[in-house]
Amino acid sequence: MKILFIGFGNVAKEMSRIFIQRDLYPALDLESRVVGIFTGRHGGLEKKDGIDLIKVLDELRLSNRLTADERELSSLTPLEAAKTLDYDVLVELSALSIEDRGEPAASHIRTALERGKSVASANKGPVSFRYKELKELAEKNGALYLFESAVMDGAPLFNFCSRCMKGATVNGFSGILNGTTNFILSHMEKGGSLEEGIKMAQEAGIAEADPSMDVDGWDPSAKAAALVNVLMGGNITPLDVERDGIRAVTPETAQDAVKRGMRLKLLCRGWKDGNNVHASVRVEEVNRDDIFCLISHYGSAVRIESDLMHPNIIVQDCPDLLDTAYGVIEDLITIRDSLGLI
Amino acid sequence: MKILFIGFGNVAKEMSRIFIQRDLYPALDLESRVVGIFTGRHGGLEKKDGIDLIKVLDELRLSNRLTADERELSSLTPLEAAKTLDYDVLVELSALSIEDRGEPAASHIRTALERGKSVASANKGPVSFRYKELKELAEKNGALYLFESAVMDGAPLFNFCSRCMKGATVNGFSGILNGTTNFILSHMEKGGSLEEGIKMAQEAGIAEADPSMDVDGWDPSAKAAALVNVLMGGNITPLDVERDGIRAVTPETAQDAVKRGMRLKLLCRGWKDGNNVHASVRVEEVNRDDIFCLISHYGSAVRIESDLMHPNIIVQDCPDLLDTAYGVIEDLITIRDSLGLI
Repeated sequence: MKILFIGFGNVAKEMSRIFIQRDLYPALDLESRVVGIFTGRHGGLEKKDGIDLIKVLDELRLSNRLTADERELSSLTPLEAAKTLDYDVLVELSALSIEDRGEPAASHIRTALERGKSVASANKGPVSFRYKELKELAEKNGALYLFESAVMDGAPLFNFCSRCMKGATVNGFSGILNGTTNFILSHMEKGGSLEEGIKMAQEAGIAEADPSMDVDGWDPSAKAAALVNVLMGGNITPLDVERDGIRAVTPETAQDAVKRGMRLKLLCRGWKDGNNVHASVRVEEVNRDDIFCLISHYGSAVRIESDLMHPNIIVQDCPDLLDTAYGVIEDLITIRDSLGLI
Repeated sequence: MKILFIGFGNVAKEMSRIFIQRDLYPALDLESRVVGIFTGRHGGLEKKDGIDLIKVLDELRLSNRLTADERELSSLTPLEAAKTLDYDVLVELSALSIEDRGEPAASHIRTALERGKSVASANKGPVSFRYKELKELAEKNGALYLFESAVMDGAPLFNFCSRCMKGATVNGFSGILNGTTNFILSHMEKGGSLEEGIKMAQEAGIAEADPSMDVDGWDPSAKAAALVNVLMGGNITPLDVERDGIRAVTPETAQDAVKRGMRLKLLCRGWKDGNNVHASVRVEEVNRDDIFCLISHYGSAVRIESDLMHPNIIVQDCPDLLDTAYGVIEDLITIRDSLGLI
């Protein structure tokens, strides 16, 4: 399988590590060759017979660049690479953009799909802003557009619903889907401030680059929109989500909730109202008997409601980059198996 | 899809209700025709062009028999029905038998698979005692042997691992997998006795017919063996599980644990030790921060450990017959899609 990376941050690096150390994982039989790596800041590399990932990871670690020899850098932009290179799958891992409504990632994905190339992406932007369009484009061109890691760090949520509930209709969901705010709220329960919490989450490497994405609820709104669109047939964007952040929470209100046997959690919800679907992201008081109450640190959880099962809850305990990277790899396996790629 | 039922208790009745009321479930596009219903106590019915399920359910409710006209009863035994009738899928729903090591259900299933007929079963016996043999027999004859509802009342656990973790290796699990003992332990925390708890679970219709199956840990041992065999490549039986029941628990010990901020739970575990796999069912003290602590009543939960993801936990909140019935229907959908049946 020939892979083109657009975006080569922590998730791509962890995927590369797994590719390099594939022998550690007995069930992982994915044959991959990375033919292109394109980034916003470090330029791009292309190599038909496969890029040496060990060398790239070393170079990034030692000198924060893709290659020691600048002459090796490609003259293509990421979009041009998606348009012209010879690859099987685009792995799109650029950062979430609300302002630009999923761009430029959506354009990278569109370009690949138009060429009949499949896409695996951990990016929430395109799936929350452009799902219907991209899905139809993929179907028209015999390609797949998959995004398991866009929500819940690669824990199988989209696949759970599409592969394990084939006869059931999802009618709603609720969940904790933003680790950073969950961490900050826990920190406030101990008397810490919002600002301290943000700083600690940034130091732990889990906060979005722009704190507003987390703190003002944009990241969970993108996730809620993605779930509503993919699982419930909705056609909304993150801008349509009834959105609340955690800026109004103080250490005092967080501690007051704890005193009353509750915890404050930033909950995402999706529900149906006749033929319409809605989503919200709100700070809610959660009871001590509720599993959401036990989601601490960067964990996440989602409760899925359907017509043929009582609610199932999926909990992702202490996720890190391994989970997000594996979610994308799971998408690659699906693409390989569905399209008969080698 | 032509279906033969062996066993026609509560799960089969709920499946029949769903078939009858199919229009209530927009995503459920399963075309089914029940060509045989065979039971241990009520005899059997067979009808090539489809049994009238509404009539059978009415008759069972009104007079606890399959038909008002005894001349309609088949002269076949369940095993003979599996051997001779014209059907696509055997739905095996007879009760768990530890003493008889999964028989007679295993023979029903074997007979169907030998004829190249697929099997969907909620019965823990055959999958815990005979998985390897039955799986190989299915593969040899181009049939499927599925059992999603054998563990966790149809919550997608086997499918989660096989369909959503394709590149990962399951290295272990832990879970609460027996609703009856979980209910009884909760009852004891309120000062109730084992005997009262058993009686209440029986009245609620969730206890196994023989209380020893639950209270002495046989039901969870069968489930633990099934998980070890299916998910971890083991080849053990419920008799190999390090088995404990809840008979040694008293209201005092249950309440003492609560006083210390813990709860007593009957936990199933599976783990690897070199090339060997092991399983246990034991009363363990669970910390208040552990999600297992919040599993009350008849709920269940399982934590899955793998090499490529941090633990995922699946929680089944308040399951009832709907969930078990749907799990079997999900298996029927898989069989239809995999084998191209109509």
